[in-house]
Amino acid sequence: MQAAVLISEVGPRDGLQSVRSTMPTTHKTAWIDALVAAGVREIEVGSFVPARLLPQMADVAEVVRHALTHPGLTVMALVPNLRGAEAALAAGVHKLTLPVSASEAHSQANVRRTRAQMVDEVRRVVARRNERAPGVRIEAGLSTAFGCTLEGVVPEDEVVRLAVALAEAGADEIGLSDTTGMANPAQVRRLFTRVRTAIGARTGAAHLHNTRGLGLANCLAAWDVGVRTFDSSQGGLGGCPYAPGASGNVVTEDLVFMFEAMGVPTGIDLERLLAARAALRAGLPDEPLYGMTPEAGLPKGFVPAGGAAPRGTAPLAGARP
Amino acid sequence: MQAAVLISEVGPRDGLQSVRSTMPTTHKTAWIDALVAAGVREIEVGSFVPARLLPQMADVAEVVRHALTHPGLTVMALVPNLRGAEAALAAGVHKLTLPVSASEAHSQANVRRTRAQMVDEVRRVVARRNERAPGVRIEAGLSTAFGCTLEGVVPEDEVVRLAVALAEAGADEIGLSDTTGMANPAQVRRLFTRVRTAIGARTGAAHLHNTRGLGLANCLAAWDVGVRTFDSSQGGLGGCPYAPGASGNVVTEDLVFMFEAMGVPTGIDLERLLAARAALRAGLPDEPLYGMTPEAGLPKGFVPAGGAAPRGTAPLAGARP
Repeated sequence: MQAAVLISEVGPRDGLQSVRSTMPTTHKTAWIDALVAAGVREIEVGSFVPARLLPQMADVAEVVRHALTHPGLTVMALVPNLRGAEAALAAGVHKLTLPVSASEAHSQANVRRTRAQMVDEVRRVVARRNERAPGVRIEAGLSTAFGCTLEGVVPEDEVVRLAVALAEAGADEIGLSDTTGMANPAQVRRLFTRVRTAIGARTGAAHLHNTRGLGLANCLAAWDVGVRTFDSSQGGLGGCPYAPGASGNVVTEDLVFMFEAMGVPTGIDLERLLAARAALRAGLPDEPLYGMTPEAGLPKGFVPAGGAAPRGTAPLAGARP
Repeated sequence: MQAAVLISEVGPRDGLQSVRSTMPTTHKTAWIDALVAAGVREIEVGSFVPARLLPQMADVAEVVRHALTHPGLTVMALVPNLRGAEAALAAGVHKLTLPVSASEAHSQANVRRTRAQMVDEVRRVVARRNERAPGVRIEAGLSTAFGCTLEGVVPEDEVVRLAVALAEAGADEIGLSDTTGMANPAQVRRLFTRVRTAIGARTGAAHLHNTRGLGLANCLAAWDVGVRTFDSSQGGLGGCPYAPGASGNVVTEDLVFMFEAMGVPTGIDLERLLAARAALRAGLPDEPLYGMTPEAGLPKGFVPAGGAAPRGTAPLAGARP
């Protein structure tokens, strides 16, 4: 059997903060429970941001508290700054992710800070983590790494330079995000390879969008050059509200189908994952959900990686990174 | 610059024969004109089948006659048997394609013949071509090569065996079709590699579907192992009416965007290709059209392969295979 990949479900954060409706807390926790029951081992459960900016995330501490009751689950949260990180550490998350824009214009639009200021903020968050909760991992996600709707092309040298700066600032993982859906497979291979050459094992997740239909092709390209962690969102929910025209995270269901069909284990039971859509739908009755595999169903005679669906098994031991 | 790929537009055949409405002849020819103006160099313009079976294709000879007025365009037609091939040769097509099912059950459902009978039919078509029109190329397209909604898994050994039999029967190109949308990238790489090992340069096009969202990832996988001809359909129109649950050819617009963004020339001007949707829409006002790139538009700062859009250039000389 081939080496496993880690599917990091970002829907409860990236998805829910992008829609107008606010999912009630009990629906959020029921959805997380359904994802965990399907074998999902890492979930970005919310953002620690002021409730006046993102009322959808006002209950994030409560959602984290519930998620922490699942043994083996890595509970992640997005934090935009030190203040958010302090709240997330107090809530007990296992992993923080800080967005750092590769494009200066996107950085200003998204967090009203320069890229250099964000690298400094990551350094401060790392210092606070070291004092308070040294077991917590810190990811920096380089957004607009493949292009920016405001600036257009983002030079690859800039992305590599920022990845190195973030590694030096102490981030444990530096991921690359196609925030604006502009990536292509050749670029994904080239840029992940360059970043890995520069920062080695600190190279983190691929966070790719399906804006122009290339989401899965780009995930395949990233996998080809050694990426083993992929962000995606059930039902394709989400996108970046500050990047006009951008929409559509990679659909978790289609991504898991692709890897399992290829013989690459995800640890996720596809039938249970498809069933988890009901929990998402119950909490967001009016939002469109995407996904081709959910529409078409699993093919006749489908055999997941490992030969049989891992029914009734617990999430893989030692899954937390 | 990288080696070019050939995008073979199958919408006027595979798309139009799958929808209930019949596109009027003048709309078909206007759509073909718009595709040619965008730089499309090969089009499957129709099927030579009895009009009582597929009334949408009743005007195929007239459509071929019009398509032949475009210098440099390879005019293809699908034929199910020798009788269809004779009509197509009489109409003056440059290339014939015969579907041969890799699954016995699909062969019976689709053409009411065994696979062995279809190989014999290809041999007869080759003999007739040799007498009448030796310059015409013959493609055999192995449908359900990656799985069958009736039989489930289709053994790879069977696909390779049939490819060899079709090469021995005299087919110039043997393509592989994911008729039922069951292919995955690992399988695409493995099967095209095995077929190429068996029949070398007679290995033909990848005809891949987007049923479970993997269409472009599978095209990328085929490209990675040397495939340079790809079937696709504008607006994703089409599918196989005898394969329940299967739908959705790869969308030409998204496929061309992927290759051009990767720096792989297609010879197609993306803006003109997007404009050609209006001609398709005019002829089929009530059918859904798909495509993510048409929805999102081209990214800011987009540079096609070769550096600039090939505005005002004629289709590439020598493009006909």
